[in-house]
Amino acid sequence: MAKRSIVTFLSDYGLQDEFVGVCHGVMLGIKSDLSIIDIHHNILRQDVRHGAIVLQQSIKFMPEGVHLAVVDPAVGTERRPVAIVTRHGEIFVAPDNGLVMPAVNECGGARSAHLLTNRSLMLSPMSATFHGRDVFAPAAAHIANGVEIKEFGPEVPVDGLTGLEIPVAWPHDDHLHAEVLQLDRFGNLQLNFNQRILEEVGMAAGKRVEIRMEGHRLHVAYGKSFADVEVGEFVLVEDSYEKLSLAVNKGDAAARLQAAAGSTIIVGPSVG
Amino acid sequence: MAKRSIVTFLSDYGLQDEFVGVCHGVMLGIKSDLSIIDIHHNILRQDVRHGAIVLQQSIKFMPEGVHLAVVDPAVGTERRPVAIVTRHGEIFVAPDNGLVMPAVNECGGARSAHLLTNRSLMLSPMSATFHGRDVFAPAAAHIANGVEIKEFGPEVPVDGLTGLEIPVAWPHDDHLHAEVLQLDRFGNLQLNFNQRILEEVGMAAGKRVEIRMEGHRLHVAYGKSFADVEVGEFVLVEDSYEKLSLAVNKGDAAARLQAAAGSTIIVGPSVG
Amino acid sequence: MAKRSIVTFLSDYGLQDEFVGVCHGVMLGIKSDLSIIDIHHNILRQDVRHGAIVLQQSIKFMPEGVHLAVVDPAVGTERRPVAIVTRHGEIFVAPDNGLVMPAVNECGGARSAHLLTNRSLMLSPMSATFHGRDVFAPAAAHIANGVEIKEFGPEVPVDGLTGLEIPVAWPHDDHLHAEVLQLDRFGNLQLNFNQRILEEVGMAAGKRVEIRMEGHRLHVAYGKSFADVEVGEFVLVEDSYEKLSLAVNKGDAAARLQAAAGSTIIVGPSVG
Repeated sequence: MAKRSIVTFLSDYGLQDEFVGVCHGVMLGIKSDLSIIDIHHNILRQDVRHGAIVLQQSIKFMPEGVHLAVVDPAVGTERRPVAIVTRHGEIFVAPDNGLVMPAVNECGGARSAHLLTNRSLMLSPMSATFHGRDVFAPAAAHIANGVEIKEFGPEVPVDGLTGLEIPVAWPHDDHLHAEVLQLDRFGNLQLNFNQRILEEVGMAAGKRVEIRMEGHRLHVAYGKSFADVEVGEFVLVEDSYEKLSLAVNKGDAAARLQAAAGSTIIVGPSVG
Repeated sequence: MAKRSIVTFLSDYGLQDEFVGVCHGVMLGIKSDLSIIDIHHNILRQDVRHGAIVLQQSIKFMPEGVHLAVVDPAVGTERRPVAIVTRHGEIFVAPDNGLVMPAVNECGGARSAHLLTNRSLMLSPMSATFHGRDVFAPAAAHIANGVEIKEFGPEVPVDGLTGLEIPVAWPHDDHLHAEVLQLDRFGNLQLNFNQRILEEVGMAAGKRVEIRMEGHRLHVAYGKSFADVEVGEFVLVEDSYEKLSLAVNKGDAAARLQAAAGSTIIVGPSVG
Repeated sequence: MAKRSIVTFLSDYGLQDEFVGVCHGVMLGIKSDLSIIDIHHNILRQDVRHGAIVLQQSIKFMPEGVHLAVVDPAVGTERRPVAIVTRHGEIFVAPDNGLVMPAVNECGGARSAHLLTNRSLMLSPMSATFHGRDVFAPAAAHIANGVEIKEFGPEVPVDGLTGLEIPVAWPHDDHLHAEVLQLDRFGNLQLNFNQRILEEVGMAAGKRVEIRMEGHRLHVAYGKSFADVEVGEFVLVEDSYEKLSLAVNKGDAAARLQAAAGSTIIVGPSVG
C-alpha cells in the first residue's frame, strides 16, 4: 500500500457551500501531500442511483487510488460505513447503500470489506449529519496514508454488502425495453444500452428507429452525430461512454418529452 | 516556517469567472508545489459577515497553513491589507475589515500583525479592483514559500485590527434572544446558539419550543433529525457545526418565513 | 523539458457534470504528481471567441507549464488537434480553431506546432465527442511528463494555424469604434480598449463621455471606480485587466442595454 496518494471524490454536496472544501481540509490535514480529484459534486441530492451511475462510468478514467463517495440519505441511521477492496486493488470508501457497487463491479468485484467503526480514525466529536467530513473523508485519507483496512473495523462478508443494480436494456423480438439512466445539463437522455445491443435486435446506424416514451411515439434518426438531423429534431447517438443517448439537435430532449432518469422507453424498428 | 505548503482560500469571487483560477495561477507561479484548498468561493457578494461566519466554522477542519480570505467591499480605498499570525501559529492574509477575526479568535487570537505594503511582493502593475490577485494571493504564496512576515511591511498593533463580532444568543429568563447566522442552499437557517445554551434556559431535545420570527409564531419540535417531524413541518435540529438550525423537513424554512441572515428570533418554551 | 509539472485547463465543460473531473483523472493517471490549475470551465458553450478572450487575459498570470484549452464545436470533424510551442517556451494543447492563438501571441507567438495523431498517446477507444478526455488531456499530461512534442505527430507550419483575431477599438477623429469583449456575471461589459487609446482621442478620466450602443445614447461618467456615480447610473471604469468596462453602479449594464459580447459601441466626447 505504498503509493496510494490519490483520492477521488464524488458527492451530492454541491459547490455552493463549504462542504467539499471542509472535506478537502480534513484529508490534507491527515496527509498533506494528497492529490484529490473531484469527480462530481452535483449528484442529485440523496440520489444514490444517480451517484452510482456516474461513478460506474467515471471509474475507468481514474488513476489507482482511494475512491471516496458520499451520497448518504440514511446518514445517522444504522446504515454501515464501509471500505471495500476490489479484486483489481482499488479501494472504495462509502456508505453501504449500493452507491459504489456498480463501480466496484467495474473493478473486478469486491474482494473484502471492513466496517468503519474505529473512532480513533474519525473526527471527534462526530456530527449526526456530516459523516462525509467526520467518518468517510478521514478514512480515505488514512488509507491513502498507509493505514491498513483492517485497522478500521471488523471484516464483513462481501456478499452481505448492499447491492444496487443499474438495469440493462432487455431485448425482445425486434425491439428493446430500455430506460433513461441520467440526463445531462442539456437535456440529453442517456439510455441503458450500447450500439451492440441495438444491432442485435436488427437496428443499425443510419436507419430510423421508433421510440415510445412517456406517451410519445417518435420516429428518430439513429445517427453518428447531432448534425445528422435538422435543428430541433430528435436523434439517437452514441455518447462518450459508449451508451446511446436520445437528444434534440440544439434542443432539450428531456423537456420535450417530460422524461426523467428512470423513464421507460421502447426502441423498435421504424415503420412510419 | 519550514513546511507551510498549504494555502486555504475563501472568497466571494464565485466559480463563474476566471477569478479563482487566476489567483491559483499566481500562487503556483510563486510556489509550484503549493496545495490550495478552496474552502468556499460563493460567499455572498461583499458580505464580510457571511465570509467571517463560514471561515470561523471551517477553520478547525483545516490543516496548518496560510489562510487566504478575500471579501473586500472597500478594495481601492484606505482599508489595510494585513497578515496576521495567531497564538496557535496559523497565518491569515486578508483585508483588515474583520473578515478573518472570528477565525483568528478560534486560533487563540492574534499574536502579531503586519501590513502588506512591500510592492516587491505584489504583482505589478497593481489593479484598483483585484487585490485578491495582485496583493493577497501573492502574499499567501510568498509566506507559504518561507518569506518572513516582517518582510511584507510594518508591524501594527493587534488591538488596532478591525474587529467583527458574530453575535451569540442572549438568554433571558426562560427564552433566548437569537439571530440567524446564515442560510444554506436548502433554506435551512443556522442560528447563533448551541444545545448547551438552549438547555440552560430549560429546553431539551424532544420537547417543543415556541419560535417568534418575522411576524410568525411557530410551535416547533426540537428534535434529533429532520425525520422527527412530518414532511413540510418545522424542526429545530443540531447541524454539523454544533449550531442549532431551523429547518423544514424537505422544505425551505427561509422562504416560508421570509427570513435572512441577521433576522432576529426569540426561542422560548412552547405553551401552545 | 524537465520540470513542466503544471497544466492549466480552460474549457466550456461546466462544473455540473463529471467532464472536468474525468479529465483530471486521466491526467493524474498519466502523471500522478501533476498540479492542475482550473482557469475557467464556464466558457459559453462552443463559444471559441469567449474562450480565446479569457485565455488571452489570464495567461500572463499563469505559471510556466502546459496550457490545455478545449472549446471544440467541430469535434468529430476534420479540425486538427495540435500542440503549439511559443517563442517564450509555453506549450498549448488545443483544437486548431483559433482558441489559443491570442494567448499564444501574448507568449511571443508560435514557434512550432505539431499535430496530435499518435494514437498510442491517446485513450483507446477514442470517443467521437469527448476529445478533451481522449486526446487533449492525455497529450497535456504526457507533455508535462516529458514526452517530446515531436512524438505526437507531424510538424505543421505555424502560419497554417487557424487564427482568431480579437478586434481592437478603432479611433476615428474624436471618437472610438469599439465593441464588447465579454460580460461578467454582474452584467458589466468589458470593452476592447484601454485608457491609453481613450486618451489618444482626447478623453480623460473625470470627464464624461457619450456612448451610443444598441439604440441607446448615454452620457456616462468616465471614472476611477463605481463609487464615482450614484447607484443605478452608468460609469466607464478600468477593470483589473486594464480594459475599460461599462458598468452600472450596483446594477446590470448588459440587461439595461440589451447588450451582448460583440455588440458594437461608439465612444465620443459628451456634449450633452
